[in-house]
Amino acid sequence: MSSDFGKHLRIQLFGQSHSEALGVVIDGLPSGVEPDMDRILHWLKRRAPGGSALSSPRKEPDLPEILSGLAEGKTCGAPLCAIFRNKDTRSEDYDALKHIPRPGHADYTAYMKTGGANDIRGGGHFSARLTAPLVFAGALCAQLLEEKDIFLGAHIRSIGPLEDRPFDPVHIMRKELDTLKIADFPVLDPTAGHKMKDYILETAARKDSVGGIVECCVLGLPPGLGEPIFDGLENRISAAVFGIPAVKGIEFGDGFETARSTGSVNNDAFFYEAGQVRTKTNHNGGILGGLASGMPLIFRAAFKPTPSIGLPQDSVDLSTGQNTTLTVKGRHDPCVVPRAVPCVEAAAAIALYDLCLGDRR
Amino acid sequence: MSSDFGKHLRIQLFGQSHSEALGVVIDGLPSGVEPDMDRILHWLKRRAPGGSALSSPRKEPDLPEILSGLAEGKTCGAPLCAIFRNKDTRSEDYDALKHIPRPGHADYTAYMKTGGANDIRGGGHFSARLTAPLVFAGALCAQLLEEKDIFLGAHIRSIGPLEDRPFDPVHIMRKELDTLKIADFPVLDPTAGHKMKDYILETAARKDSVGGIVECCVLGLPPGLGEPIFDGLENRISAAVFGIPAVKGIEFGDGFETARSTGSVNNDAFFYEAGQVRTKTNHNGGILGGLASGMPLIFRAAFKPTPSIGLPQDSVDLSTGQNTTLTVKGRHDPCVVPRAVPCVEAAAAIALYDLCLGDRR
Amino acid sequence: MSSDFGKHLRIQLFGQSHSEALGVVIDGLPSGVEPDMDRILHWLKRRAPGGSALSSPRKEPDLPEILSGLAEGKTCGAPLCAIFRNKDTRSEDYDALKHIPRPGHADYTAYMKTGGANDIRGGGHFSARLTAPLVFAGALCAQLLEEKDIFLGAHIRSIGPLEDRPFDPVHIMRKELDTLKIADFPVLDPTAGHKMKDYILETAARKDSVGGIVECCVLGLPPGLGEPIFDGLENRISAAVFGIPAVKGIEFGDGFETARSTGSVNNDAFFYEAGQVRTKTNHNGGILGGLASGMPLIFRAAFKPTPSIGLPQDSVDLSTGQNTTLTVKGRHDPCVVPRAVPCVEAAAAIALYDLCLGDRR
Amino acid sequence: MSSDFGKHLRIQLFGQSHSEALGVVIDGLPSGVEPDMDRILHWLKRRAPGGSALSSPRKEPDLPEILSGLAEGKTCGAPLCAIFRNKDTRSEDYDALKHIPRPGHADYTAYMKTGGANDIRGGGHFSARLTAPLVFAGALCAQLLEEKDIFLGAHIRSIGPLEDRPFDPVHIMRKELDTLKIADFPVLDPTAGHKMKDYILETAARKDSVGGIVECCVLGLPPGLGEPIFDGLENRISAAVFGIPAVKGIEFGDGFETARSTGSVNNDAFFYEAGQVRTKTNHNGGILGGLASGMPLIFRAAFKPTPSIGLPQDSVDLSTGQNTTLTVKGRHDPCVVPRAVPCVEAAAAIALYDLCLGDRR
Repeated sequence: MSSDFGKHLRIQLFGQSHSEALGVVIDGLPSGVEPDMDRILHWLKRRAPGGSALSSPRKEPDLPEILSGLAEGKTCGAPLCAIFRNKDTRSEDYDALKHIPRPGHADYTAYMKTGGANDIRGGGHFSARLTAPLVFAGALCAQLLEEKDIFLGAHIRSIGPLEDRPFDPVHIMRKELDTLKIADFPVLDPTAGHKMKDYILETAARKDSVGGIVECCVLGLPPGLGEPIFDGLENRISAAVFGIPAVKGIEFGDGFETARSTGSVNNDAFFYEAGQVRTKTNHNGGILGGLASGMPLIFRAAFKPTPSIGLPQDSVDLSTGQNTTLTVKGRHDPCVVPRAVPCVEAAAAIALYDLCLGDRR
Repeated sequence: MSSDFGKHLRIQLFGQSHSEALGVVIDGLPSGVEPDMDRILHWLKRRAPGGSALSSPRKEPDLPEILSGLAEGKTCGAPLCAIFRNKDTRSEDYDALKHIPRPGHADYTAYMKTGGANDIRGGGHFSARLTAPLVFAGALCAQLLEEKDIFLGAHIRSIGPLEDRPFDPVHIMRKELDTLKIADFPVLDPTAGHKMKDYILETAARKDSVGGIVECCVLGLPPGLGEPIFDGLENRISAAVFGIPAVKGIEFGDGFETARSTGSVNNDAFFYEAGQVRTKTNHNGGILGGLASGMPLIFRAAFKPTPSIGLPQDSVDLSTGQNTTLTVKGRHDPCVVPRAVPCVEAAAAIALYDLCLGDRR
Repeated sequence: MSSDFGKHLRIQLFGQSHSEALGVVIDGLPSGVEPDMDRILHWLKRRAPGGSALSSPRKEPDLPEILSGLAEGKTCGAPLCAIFRNKDTRSEDYDALKHIPRPGHADYTAYMKTGGANDIRGGGHFSARLTAPLVFAGALCAQLLEEKDIFLGAHIRSIGPLEDRPFDPVHIMRKELDTLKIADFPVLDPTAGHKMKDYILETAARKDSVGGIVECCVLGLPPGLGEPIFDGLENRISAAVFGIPAVKGIEFGDGFETARSTGSVNNDAFFYEAGQVRTKTNHNGGILGGLASGMPLIFRAAFKPTPSIGLPQDSVDLSTGQNTTLTVKGRHDPCVVPRAVPCVEAAAAIALYDLCLGDRR
Repeated sequence: MSSDFGKHLRIQLFGQSHSEALGVVIDGLPSGVEPDMDRILHWLKRRAPGGSALSSPRKEPDLPEILSGLAEGKTCGAPLCAIFRNKDTRSEDYDALKHIPRPGHADYTAYMKTGGANDIRGGGHFSARLTAPLVFAGALCAQLLEEKDIFLGAHIRSIGPLEDRPFDPVHIMRKELDTLKIADFPVLDPTAGHKMKDYILETAARKDSVGGIVECCVLGLPPGLGEPIFDGLENRISAAVFGIPAVKGIEFGDGFETARSTGSVNNDAFFYEAGQVRTKTNHNGGILGGLASGMPLIFRAAFKPTPSIGLPQDSVDLSTGQNTTLTVKGRHDPCVVPRAVPCVEAAAAIALYDLCLGDRR
């Protein structure tokens, strides 16, 4: 009931970090569409661990197995189920954690929710590994959005205190988004990127972790897309993006900066350009009243530092009721942000395609 | 389909700024509950316009009329419908706006969505007036939450560049929240409050508007409350809070600041205090993995400056396809933030009570 | 959460038989549509009590008041709320019933559900009076279906043991449906109708009540309309039709008769007629695999006899735990079937228009 | 969006008759429950083909593989996914059917819905094989209902014109339901059962098929269970039961017979028995106003004859626009009713457990 998303297209995630498999069922796809497996595999590769020293050494091929939903390679009107077998699991790393919750993780809260029945191995259903099926679904939605001339892409906006150049909210072009998708480390300013990578490695060397911000842009949304009040673009995108572990904030357009601004500055004046209504500025991030203005939709998601760090930490032993100390073993990312980029794109793609399917026009 | 919220309790809003009435239907309430009308009227009064020079001079009594759902003054298992008649409407103020969208408002996007059939008067269904029934529902949910020993309250965290003292995320007490609710201008630091009020009046004198931030705190959430992935506390609260007009960002705990932090700092260490698991710090704002940790839940919502300002602005005439200029008439708030405080509380109360109703334990 | 219907168009009913008002909120209507108030009032009149000796003498003008959702008389993209004030209530008739449930009614079950907080007056939220807003919504959906060349109509198929001629499932024409709508007593065979009316009056004279069957037909459904498994036409229509009080069974096409048939008889052979695929027979009632076949959709709903009868009945006193006897006062229909005809049409129209809105083609 | 069921527990079915696998995701299960695999396998065996001359010779082991949702053998709060690999598929049987729809099947309607992209092999997603995951979910829900002292069971009420003895709607006991579950051919009257079996075999010998009725009973529902108007027991059970292929009608209690009855007969008089409110008769099938009365819930579902028969049938060739004739190959049941018994139980169990989870008391 909570691992599903969508009102017009339903995305049902399932699986735990160390269960037999994890996956997704997608119900409500249009018929006759051939999934672009190259795109899906490429997005999954961008998300996959084991790619470099920047990420967890856990190696999972992340090859989806499609169990249903296709006939002769095309969607046939039936729900599409794709699964990922879990292979490189080392559940023994988690034996010590059964009753000692890792700070910053969902261990304690999941324990309390389930009366101790939660799957502690690898974080169970709360693991970032659940973003593999999310990315599968998102890549497919991105393909379907592109058929409607809607394109999206994201970059690492910051790592700790280090910032990339922001998207130009008015003039950003599709080719910039495309370039980011093939980058090893998706930033607009390569120099900033090098510094960020060094910063991550230095943090990892200290057995610590670091957070960061992903900035996402969507081009081509038809003006008026979205629904009033509770199904506006902001509501739906945030409801999806907070489904990615470690997200602690989201903002649209100038976001929190608008709180410091004035109406005379923040209002984006309309004008006609080549017969199209556009705005001269885009402080509102392409959204007015929850609906698309036709200008680039821009949002940022803040990721907290990976809770798993190699340093000893204070915790409690739920079986004894005593304070204790633990040191997290297992294999983890010193910074989730680089791998989170396709996850943010995926969450946005799912939310937006769902809104497109419900669009009455 | 979009003006409703809730999976276990359904909140259906309806109405336009200048329609015959606006209101809310609440389906799924427990039976035998006597709505605390004093609380409801008090919350509505905190939200109502016309209270001071800080807000719109539009005067609406905002007295709800309950059409259904009660028997002998108590909920009877049937949907509760409450309506607010619109009285002090001056629709003629909007005649000039039919084809000239106000910058920063939903006029243009709603026009595009509906093919020009949108109700332009007072912003129609996109009007902040829709927060009256939202607050009605939220006040009722807050009452029901209190029966579960869950309390919430909010303050003005900032107006433009001026900041109030933040909530102490570890030690905040219920009485602080209660005090805020009876304040004329809800801040923790009265000196900051005076400066904020002056700042709003100065901005209004310049025919401009200003934004700000509302910070909300919830005490008493049972550890583990919330659902995995897409129905976490962050997902659900943000989905509700973005239903309030002018919200452009939301963050939980340290929010965007966590992106600059490290795991060794941001992880909140667990310890036992009087037999209860608590955390020494609360950077995660009472939420781990989307579930309540038992520590105070803290979040902030950023409000953009009121789009309606008295200064002339550039826009377009959709009927002629020409650029033009408009000056917004009508009666508006130079800053929506003071009136937004109960709205944020209401949105949070609705999201949280809905999660409580779905809680299986 | 249970008085609402629809996945793409949401119909939220509210109200009790003797509450201030009852009504409906319709969220998700297309914009720019002018509700055909003549049709709505005509459908409401067909449903209204007080029309003749065949129905309850309670007189309610049943004039809907539209509170929201329109701008300049057309739908504006905001939820439409229509209410009906309750006027001719005689709540004192129900005082004696607070703890003595009427057999056949929801009194006992609602009491158990709500811990005795249910609104006993007139059956509260379980009253057939809730079909007034249902018919409002259904008449509007029927209008929207007609814009898609889909037409529906129903007749009294039987009253007690007396039967009307059935619809010809292959050759039925729209004009037959139209004729039924303007009939005082909608039957295909006027002679059967006269007998039915006499039968109802005789039953009423005995202070008893009688049941019957309504048969409904829908023409013009596009082949393939409907969704697999749980959102087939049968699922959705039955989910709506059982929302009408007193319905105890529903069947599609030959329905229960198909259980006695063989495949060689029951299979409807396809053939081309004027370039269109049709079937020679229509035992399946225009539905195959839950999807429309393009042939007339035919279904029947069985209504039990009105539980309210003037004869003394055995019951219990829930306040004393003793057996007792009651005689139902109040004003009731000796047979709900004639008034149920527009209700069945309305329920079907809502279910079908909802499916049309979700249709991807 | 249509292959899922449930408001509090979500059952998402996926798969096609000849896809790699089919299965179910169950989201919202309580934590810490150990699925009774013996029960699940027993129910699946009752549904499985290949058991006797009465059913399709297609042999599928129907062994579910649980991919997720368990930790140490118990539910862990994450969605449970179970799949069934398709093994004994003979897709070549369906090559000839790509453009020639089988009468009585969903071939034509699915073709029209999907623009010809539907999976024709074995009926694709419309295949009765989808009842395997439905039965998996239903058996699990039946286990969870039993923990609440709710028991259900069904029998073959009729095959063609041959009838079994009906359930005694007042005095039926749990052991009768249990006995039916271990019967080879679940009837109350063994003599009737023998005749039915012979009738099926005779029909099969004529290359024809036959329909029948399944009658289901539920004991132990708490009085008041269910929700008003659109989520009554009848609405929800029928919405689930029509998810089983070939169902064309459903009725509760005396169902269509109530249409011939009078209120003085059909009203079930209340009385106290051993301190419990009961009714002397049970014409309403344990349901009043959509809510459980505490008496046995009784309903019947009518199944049409299997559309697949060995006789030549008239159809059309959608690729040429010409009339044609086809003879269905493949392996099919001459009567689906015996295998449908656990499917009806499963659908009812899912609908009822979902209502139990949403019950507020």
